[in-house]
This record gives sequence, structure tokens and C-alpha cells, in this order.
Amino acid sequence: MSAKPSGPTRLPASDNLRDVLAYQIRLLRVEKGWSQERLALESGLDRTYVSAVERSTWNIALANIERLANALGVAAWTLLQPPAGAKPAPRARTPRSSLTSASKTLARAKKPVSPKPSS
Amino acid sequence: MSAKPSGPTRLPASDNLRDVLAYQIRLLRVEKGWSQERLALESGLDRTYVSAVERSTWNIALANIERLANALGVAAWTLLQPPAGAKPAPRARTPRSSLTSASKTLARAKKPVSPKPSS
Repeated sequence: MSAKPSGPTRLPASDNLRDVLAYQIRLLRVEKGWSQERLALESGLDRTYVSAVERSTWNIALANIERLANALGVAAWTLLQPPAGAKPAPRARTPRSSLTSASKTLARAKKPVSPKPSS
Repeated sequence: MSAKPSGPTRLPASDNLRDVLAYQIRLLRVEKGWSQERLALESGLDRTYVSAVERSTWNIALANIERLANALGVAAWTLLQPPAGAKPAPRARTPRSSLTSASKTLARAKKPVSPKPSS
């Protein structure tokens, strides 16, 4: 029961579909001045479900994307479209230094054991 | 095991999200010359699942929309966007004659009962 609905505070990663959906739903909901309870009521979904979708924790199915889109008065595809300015999430990289270190370790590990001279 | 992949033969209803998705997936798949088996392989889904999605019989979840979009090399939202020229499905209407009849019945039912004169 928050006093005032507050919008998303940062852009989603453009390649994270759950985050994009969560962002767009929250943005549209807050633009209407709706609480999650109100959106739940308008879309015929449970309040906890709406909350889970807005927290990107739910692998929502198409029929419910449609319900939310209809309640918010937009075409469903717009809910999956990354907002302007959103960028792909940076890839997790192994830092070069530790990679080099790891390579060295690997190289040491792979160092061939001198074959015993055949007797 | 069809010899040649064939594209969708008619436009989907623009307000039927499953049909739009089925249409776009089939269109892109056939443009690539891929069979359903190939798309299943590329997206890590089952062939029968891909078939069900293309027949609009599946309430597909977001993660699998994403898999199909990635396999087809497009942004997920484009799979939900109705193609140019698609129109909403015609609404089933109550025939005007029976509506009029129903209105008359309603009007009769609503006819105010004369208030009793206060004594």
C-alpha cells in the first residue's frame, strides 16, 4: 500500500526481455497513476502476480502479457520493445590479468610429464 | 517431413496475439528455408512445441518467445507485431433485431411502478 506509485528508476538492459517488460508495465501503470492493486484488478490478475512481473521474477505467458496490455490500453508488442536509450547488458568477462594467470596455471598443469625412459 | 517449407497463407487477426506470433514465426522460418525441425534445433525447443506455437495452440511463455526470436535473429517484440494490413477479428454481434427486442423487454421491465399516493 504505497502512498504514491513511483516509476522505474533506471533503464532495462535492451536484451533482457523480462526487464524490458517489467520496465514498460511499471512505466505505463505509473503514468496512469495506478497502484499494482489497480492494475491487477483491471487485468484480472493477482496483485502478487503483477508485482512478480514488475520485479522480473516471472516467466509470464502470452495470454497474461495480453491481459496486461489490454488493461494498460497498448498493443502487446510495445511492452517488449526496449525503451529508447536502453543498451544490451555488458557481458561478464574474465579480467585479462586473471585470464593470463589462469592460462599460465593451465599451461603448468598441462606441462607434459617427462616420459620415463623405457627400460 | 514436408519436402518444402511453405509460408503462412493468410494474415492473422491483428488483435489475436497467438495468431500474430504464429504468423511471424512461420514467415521468418520459411524465409530462412528452415523446417520446423531446424527451428526447434536452433532454439533448443521440441519440434512438437514449435509446431504447436505455429498452430496457435500454445500459450507460450516469455523465455521461449525469446529463444525463438534469438534463433530467428530478430528482436522478440517484432514477433508480436501484427503484419501490415492485418485487421482486428470481426466481433460477434447480437443481431440488431433481437437487440431491439431485448431493449423493449428491458424497457417494459423498467417501467416505473406508479407510486402509491401518500395517505
